[in-house]
Amino acid sequence: MTAPRAIVCGPASTARIGGGLLERASEDLVSPSGRFLLVSSAGSAPVADRLRHSLAGRLLLDLVIDDREEAKTLEAVERIAHAALEAGVRRDDALIAVGGGVVSDIAGFAAAIVLRGVAWNVVPTTTGAMADAAIGGKTGVDTKAGKNLIGAFHPPRAILIDPAALQTLPDRDFRAGLVEAFKAAWIADAALAERAERDIAKILARDEKTLMDLIAGAVAVKAAIVTDDLRESDRRRLLNFGHTLGHAFEAAGRYRELKHGEAVAWGIAAALEISARRAALAPPAAARIRGVLSALGPFPEPDRDPEALKDFLSRDKKATSRGIAGVVLETIGRARVAEAVSMDEWLEAAGAARLS
Amino acid sequence: MTAPRAIVCGPASTARIGGGLLERASEDLVSPSGRFLLVSSAGSAPVADRLRHSLAGRLLLDLVIDDREEAKTLEAVERIAHAALEAGVRRDDALIAVGGGVVSDIAGFAAAIVLRGVAWNVVPTTTGAMADAAIGGKTGVDTKAGKNLIGAFHPPRAILIDPAALQTLPDRDFRAGLVEAFKAAWIADAALAERAERDIAKILARDEKTLMDLIAGAVAVKAAIVTDDLRESDRRRLLNFGHTLGHAFEAAGRYRELKHGEAVAWGIAAALEISARRAALAPPAAARIRGVLSALGPFPEPDRDPEALKDFLSRDKKATSRGIAGVVLETIGRARVAEAVSMDEWLEAAGAARLS
Repeated sequence: MTAPRAIVCGPASTARIGGGLLERASEDLVSPSGRFLLVSSAGSAPVADRLRHSLAGRLLLDLVIDDREEAKTLEAVERIAHAALEAGVRRDDALIAVGGGVVSDIAGFAAAIVLRGVAWNVVPTTTGAMADAAIGGKTGVDTKAGKNLIGAFHPPRAILIDPAALQTLPDRDFRAGLVEAFKAAWIADAALAERAERDIAKILARDEKTLMDLIAGAVAVKAAIVTDDLRESDRRRLLNFGHTLGHAFEAAGRYRELKHGEAVAWGIAAALEISARRAALAPPAAARIRGVLSALGPFPEPDRDPEALKDFLSRDKKATSRGIAGVVLETIGRARVAEAVSMDEWLEAAGAARLS
Repeated sequence: MTAPRAIVCGPASTARIGGGLLERASEDLVSPSGRFLLVSSAGSAPVADRLRHSLAGRLLLDLVIDDREEAKTLEAVERIAHAALEAGVRRDDALIAVGGGVVSDIAGFAAAIVLRGVAWNVVPTTTGAMADAAIGGKTGVDTKAGKNLIGAFHPPRAILIDPAALQTLPDRDFRAGLVEAFKAAWIADAALAERAERDIAKILARDEKTLMDLIAGAVAVKAAIVTDDLRESDRRRLLNFGHTLGHAFEAAGRYRELKHGEAVAWGIAAALEISARRAALAPPAAARIRGVLSALGPFPEPDRDPEALKDFLSRDKKATSRGIAGVVLETIGRARVAEAVSMDEWLEAAGAARLS
C-alpha cells in the first residue's frame, strides 16, 4: 500500500494520491454542507458503490450518466443540473464525479453552473483522468463545431486518486491513459520520465507503487503549471504537447476509432518530427519517446488523409492566419511553444509520424 | 446632455453613465481582439443600429434574440454559443449584449461558457437593466425549478448607460424598472432616496439629468456592494430587498401578469410590514416608500393566494428548515438581513402589503 500524497492544484483544490483513499473518502471529500450529489458512469459502479456505502445518508442525489464522448453535450449537463435542482441542491452542497474524463468534464461543468456554481470533487477511475482530465479545473462539453468548445474553469475541491479505482479499467483504456502521464513527464520532468521508462514493465503490470509514482509525478507537473496560469495564456499551452494533431486524428476517427490517449500518442510522434526541425530535439531522445509509446501500444493507426486533417486543424482554437501554434520538445523534460507552425508542416509531420 | 460618469463595478468592469455614450461606443466597448459579437433584442433595434454603424467591419456576428422571460433558457444560450463558434469566435473576441435584463442574462451566460469564457459588454435599454441587471456579473437562465437557477458569475467589461437607449422603452417597463433603482437608494443611500423622491415627477417625465442621477446612484450602490462581495454570501443579500416575495409574486403570475419590477414593488411593500416588526422601521419612512411606489405605479395587483405563494417561497434559494432569510429596512438608507423569517410571517406580510 502506497502512503497517500497530497498535491496542491490551486487555491482550493487538492489532489490526494495513494492506496486506501477510497476507504477513507468521506474524510477527504469536501462539502460545506456535508451533503453530496453523486454522478458516476456505469463502468465505475464498483467505485461508486464504495462511496455510496461510506456516504450513506449524506447523498442528495445518485445519478448514473452515459460516459461516451458522444454523450458529452450541454443536454447532459442540463440533465444533471435539473436533477440536482429537483433534489433540492443548495449552494453549500457539493457534487462528486466518479469516472473517466467525460464524466468529470460533464459533471464538473454542471457543478460550475447550477446555482451559479457549487463545489465539486472528483474520483477518477481511468489513468487518463487521474493523470490529466481531473486536474486543472477545465470542464466542458463538445459541440458540432468541435470538442470542449463550451465550458467553464471550475477546479474540483478534492481529487482522490486511488489505484483501487482502476481495478475494472480495460487494458486498452489503462494503456491509452498512460500516454498523458508520460506526456507530463516529457514536457517538464526528465527524472520522472527516466524512472517511468525504466519501470515501464511494472507500470503496465499495474504495480501500485510505480504506477502511482508516475501518476503523482504527472499530477505535480500539471498542478505546477495550472496554479501558475489557470486560464491558459502561456505555460499552460505546454500541456498541449501532442494534442494539436492528436485532436485532429481523434476527430478524423469520429472519436470512435481512437481513444483520446491513442490519438495523443500519434500526435506526440508527429510533434517529435517538428521538434527535430524546430527545437533541435536529438534523435536518441526522440527514439526513447517512441520506445515508450510502442511499449504502451500497440495503438491503432489514425486516418492521415491530409484533406480531412486540414479541415480539423484549421478549426483548432490556436489557429491564426499565420498557422497554428504547436508545442515542441527541446529535450526530454523541456518543452516550448512554437508559434505559427504552417499547415504544410503539420500535415507533413502527420504523414511522417511513427511509433517505433 | 449629462457628462458621462464612470463607476468601477469590479476588477475589470466599469459602468459609464451619461448622454452621448452611444455615439462614442466604439471607444468604450472592450474587445482584446477589436472584434465583436452583437446580441440584441428586436425591441432594442434603434440602439443596436447605432452600434452596427459605429462598429462596421468589426462585427463577427449579429444576432437578434427573443427577450421574453419564457425564452431565458439554456437552449437560447446554446444557440448563441453555436452561432459564435460557427462565426469563428476566438478567445480574445468580445460579445455585446443590447437589451433588457433577459438579453444580458442570456448573452452574458453565453459569453461565460463559449471557449470557457470570452469578454463581454452590455448596453442596457431598460431602466431595470441599467439600475440592476447589467451590474454585478450575475448571468443565467431559468429552469423548470425556478428563475436564474443555472448560470455563471461573469462581469461585463464595459456597461454603457446612455439615456438615449431608453427612447423606445414603453412607459410600463420604464416605471417598473425604476423600482430597482429606488430599491438601491432605500437600502444604502438616504440622500439619493431623498433627491429622487423630491424629483420623481421629472424622473417620470424622463428628464435626463435627474433620471441619470438616480440610475448612477443605484449603480454606485450595487457596484460598492458587489465589488465587496462578488459571490453573495453576505452584503450582496441586501440587494434582495423586496425580492423574496417579489419572486414568488412573479412566479404566481407565471411571469406574465407582472413585470419583474412590479412584482418587486409589491415585495417591497410586504417587506415594509416585516421591517416594522423586526427592525422598528418608523411608520413615516414606510409611508414615504409607499408614496414613491404609488407614484411609479399604478402596478397590477399580484395573486396573494397563500397556498400558491407558499409553494414558491419554499423553493427560495435562501430557504432553510428554520425559515427564509429576508432583508429588512431599519430606516431609509439602511438595511440588514433578518435570518429565518417564518413562512407564516411571509404569508401574513404578503396579505398585508399595500402600495398606498
